[in-house]
Amino acid sequence: MKLLVVGSVAYDAIETPFGKTDKILGGAGTYVSISSAYAKADVQLVSVVGGDFEQKYLDLLQNHHVDIKGIQVKADGKTFFWSGRYHNNMNSRDTLVTELNVLGEFNPIVPDEYKDTEFLMLGNLSPDVQRKVIEQMNKKPKLIVMDTMNFWMDTMLDELKKTISMVDVISINDEEARQLSGEYSLLKAAKAIFKMGPSTVIIKKGEHGALLFQNDEVFFAPAMLLEEVFDPTGAGDTFAGGFAGYLAGSGDISFDNMKRAVVYGSAMASFCVEKFGTEGLVNLSQADIDKRMNDLTKLFKLN
Amino acid sequence: MKLLVVGSVAYDAIETPFGKTDKILGGAGTYVSISSAYAKADVQLVSVVGGDFEQKYLDLLQNHHVDIKGIQVKADGKTFFWSGRYHNNMNSRDTLVTELNVLGEFNPIVPDEYKDTEFLMLGNLSPDVQRKVIEQMNKKPKLIVMDTMNFWMDTMLDELKKTISMVDVISINDEEARQLSGEYSLLKAAKAIFKMGPSTVIIKKGEHGALLFQNDEVFFAPAMLLEEVFDPTGAGDTFAGGFAGYLAGSGDISFDNMKRAVVYGSAMASFCVEKFGTEGLVNLSQADIDKRMNDLTKLFKLN
Repeated sequence: MKLLVVGSVAYDAIETPFGKTDKILGGAGTYVSISSAYAKADVQLVSVVGGDFEQKYLDLLQNHHVDIKGIQVKADGKTFFWSGRYHNNMNSRDTLVTELNVLGEFNPIVPDEYKDTEFLMLGNLSPDVQRKVIEQMNKKPKLIVMDTMNFWMDTMLDELKKTISMVDVISINDEEARQLSGEYSLLKAAKAIFKMGPSTVIIKKGEHGALLFQNDEVFFAPAMLLEEVFDPTGAGDTFAGGFAGYLAGSGDISFDNMKRAVVYGSAMASFCVEKFGTEGLVNLSQADIDKRMNDLTKLFKLN
Repeated sequence: MKLLVVGSVAYDAIETPFGKTDKILGGAGTYVSISSAYAKADVQLVSVVGGDFEQKYLDLLQNHHVDIKGIQVKADGKTFFWSGRYHNNMNSRDTLVTELNVLGEFNPIVPDEYKDTEFLMLGNLSPDVQRKVIEQMNKKPKLIVMDTMNFWMDTMLDELKKTISMVDVISINDEEARQLSGEYSLLKAAKAIFKMGPSTVIIKKGEHGALLFQNDEVFFAPAMLLEEVFDPTGAGDTFAGGFAGYLAGSGDISFDNMKRAVVYGSAMASFCVEKFGTEGLVNLSQADIDKRMNDLTKLFKLN
């Protein structure tokens, strides 16, 4: 089935203890859409870039089966640019530069042929932009998944809550779940977030895995155990994209299938963190993904 | 089968954000032996207490099927006393008081009838005391499990490494594994610790679960998701005791059974943290344990 993704397409400059990059391809929409396309969802990306955005990156998205008809190119603007430096433990980072550029006045336009898409994934973006996408759909999609972050909780909490009330699934990290709910216990936090609207809550714990909550059910998927984490940029987006893509690719939104989707998202995120930027995520074969899913599933399988 | 446990029996005074206790029953040997006895291991405890140690606590151990013949009572000495205060997030604590008392000159004496015991669990103690117990056994037990902590890495690293070289399984937390191995990646840390002697390495991650490593195999068991963590004191000991007790109770040391043993340890630890001190761990019924094992197993089961 089809998956409509909205999210940023960006240039990133990243420093980790292992090295640094010049401006490379980044953005939540990029990670989400590449990751979800591997799960055989027909991915349609709505985003915006500037005149400085290189054709090779548009080609890269297309080569990864992402429909880019919905990417607006603002010839006289510059692409969103983010730069960050990770600390030694890779669990925290400093933002060095944020230049919103064309993302600052982004008015998402959903092409007519996308307006009946069954699955909608709202990548991390301003909550009013996310809501504008929902409002352009002809009817409520079968499933709306949203990702967000603490920045929107700090600056636009009322807007954010309005968007949260319109979605089926929310994906946030543990600290964000605590901030949004005011509860320290993640079990209590998920229950508090149910009351805001979503029937399913995903709490990402980075290297410690992810929790999936729905009604009284909880499922936990660990992160893949890796010898080296090279660059965590995009891991959360890749996870959310893998999750949404798995559901759209299979067309099955049962809780049992959501469990498998969380494991799939975790597997895709493990590729992401092994290299700089999108490098770990591009040109994966089905065999690579099958092997990683197998290794990850084995990690928590009791006989 | 029989399980010989060596470890401290102590008085603890604990402060958490939820309240504080006077001197209550504590000590690694206490948590380990109660936890392991639930798994139907015949538990023999070697330890030392002072003349101030209350009979009711010896009775409590016996009522939980712990053979206390190996507990030396030093009538003119005082029982080991520890006092600590947990921070708001419960993940870190300050030690307020450590009075070693009779534990300071503890010379463990293994009763003759314990010297052929098949399973040996070395609770967190000075590594030379742990080694003295191994050396009193008539032959190498079927399995030796040890727990330790960063304090011994800081103060007696050479002694500690000697003891580590003599055991089959070591159980430590993530920060300790990093300190001991010099590796940040837990996968690399486990491999480095294999070279020190143990063929099985368990890395405890508190609320984030535990990892079990053997050769090229890895298994991950999550911690039970709880509404409230009341007091983490003894959780790591309870986990290790549950693990060792499960193996001794079943007599099966295959990797598949070790996986189940790690889940059992995690389930027992979840009881421990729900109340102050040993309160959550005493008077559990088999039905309580079966239900918790079932809930915990369901948390990470893919259909």
